Amino acid sequence: METTRFRLALVQLFVERRRHINLERARSLINRAAKDGAQVVVLPEYFTCMMDPEYFVEYKETRNGPTCQMLARAAHENNVYLFGGTFPEEIPGSKMLNNTCQIFNPKGDVIEFCRTGFGVCLDLRYPELARLYAMRGCQLMTYMGGFSLTTGPAHLQLLQRARAVDNQMFVANVGPATNNESPYVTYGHSAVADPWGNLIAETGSDEDVVIADIDLSLVAETRRRMPIDSLRRNDLFETRDLKIKQD
Amino acid sequence: METTRFRLALVQLFVERRRHINLERARSLINRAAKDGAQVVVLPEYFTCMMDPEYFVEYKETRNGPTCQMLARAAHENNVYLFGGTFPEEIPGSKMLNNTCQIFNPKGDVIEFCRTGFGVCLDLRYPELARLYAMRGCQLMTYMGGFSLTTGPAHLQLLQRARAVDNQMFVANVGPATNNESPYVTYGHSAVADPWGNLIAETGSDEDVVIADIDLSLVAETRRRMPIDSLRRNDLFETRDLKIKQD
Repeated sequence: METTRFRLALVQLFVERRRHINLERARSLINRAAKDGAQVVVLPEYFTCMMDPEYFVEYKETRNGPTCQMLARAAHENNVYLFGGTFPEEIPGSKMLNNTCQIFNPKGDVIEFCRTGFGVCLDLRYPELARLYAMRGCQLMTYMGGFSLTTGPAHLQLLQRARAVDNQMFVANVGPATNNESPYVTYGHSAVADPWGNLIAETGSDEDVVIADIDLSLVAETRRRMPIDSLRRNDLFETRDLKIKQD
Repeated sequence: METTRFRLALVQLFVERRRHINLERARSLINRAAKDGAQVVVLPEYFTCMMDPEYFVEYKETRNGPTCQMLARAAHENNVYLFGGTFPEEIPGSKMLNNTCQIFNPKGDVIEFCRTGFGVCLDLRYPELARLYAMRGCQLMTYMGGFSLTTGPAHLQLLQRARAVDNQMFVANVGPATNNESPYVTYGHSAVADPWGNLIAETGSDEDVVIADIDLSLVAETRRRMPIDSLRRNDLFETRDLKIKQD
């Protein structure tokens, strides 16, 4: 995806108890986003089941399960890049579960790398993660996280906008819509921040698809206007990626 | 300063052309803050002269000059810890100037270290700095920065609150009051954010002293409620202090 302009859709799904209903509705909203011209579609964290260990166990699955099958088909049929939110993934031989995100290209294949960074849940709270993605050249960071009715109003858009301003990049956040029947009630308020920290698209707590036209040239433009990266005190501190071998 | 509760005052000075007037008014506001019970007083960046290279050259001075002499006396007479904002410091044998902050204890002595972190100007834009101070045990970070009428409304309190939330610490920002006669017009809006990101004291663009009662036990309380530091992915990334030798 070397294009400079594209249309991004955030699917703020209303997640209910039954997985097959969630998958059907997710697919229908992916279709709607594509009809609205989206080339990149992002689903939220835990869109297959409500957020609770009991449901995670009931609806755990593998990367060949119904969720990933639906996502691959939806990406292919709609010719979109699809950030497939997350689902509870079972780990063979373990009682632990993963909170797994798979990303699909328009052919429906899982891709390992793309120029869009992503994080889930608490990742938004760690500036280091966004910084490492920015250092690798990402110009859009997407967070798929379900903030609560306490932390959402207090911190969600504050941190989203701060990550955008710190790194002078686009930052999207998408969470499940508010469902008061869920054991863990999420805040919704999916949004897209531009590199200056302005929200260019946002929604409230109900199910919705947030559409934003992304112009990546704004990233370079913002960095040119305010060259904070060249003024960074690299002699005093650095953020290190511990997965990549360094000196 | 091992106390848990103390009163903090931010002096949002109206800075004009003449240094002696600025020093007089700063001193008078330090006195007022102390009368109001402040034990820690913070002045803004470049409080001795307006922000412009021409004035920096005209009013450059040494650490034994009129500014530091006034600050030492004011700290001693008022029995306060004093973060002495900044002044343009001349560097012997160089045409360069420093943007220098001196910190005084209640005896009027310059101190090298304290448990309060501080930054100036653009420092607020780098999450690494606040993180390093938090890692060293600081529970209050003070930024003395003059944001402009463009960057102030867009970023000042956003970044201040984000630094507080990221590190679950108190974060103060103090800048000069708005002076439309200055070559660089500052935004003011000095404020104090608590570890949850709420502004517990703030002011507008006019000259003012912002008073806040700081209860450092809120830092531990906030970290207990939301233990983001113990959930940090120390296996994936780290912020490194390059001034301290590490493995």
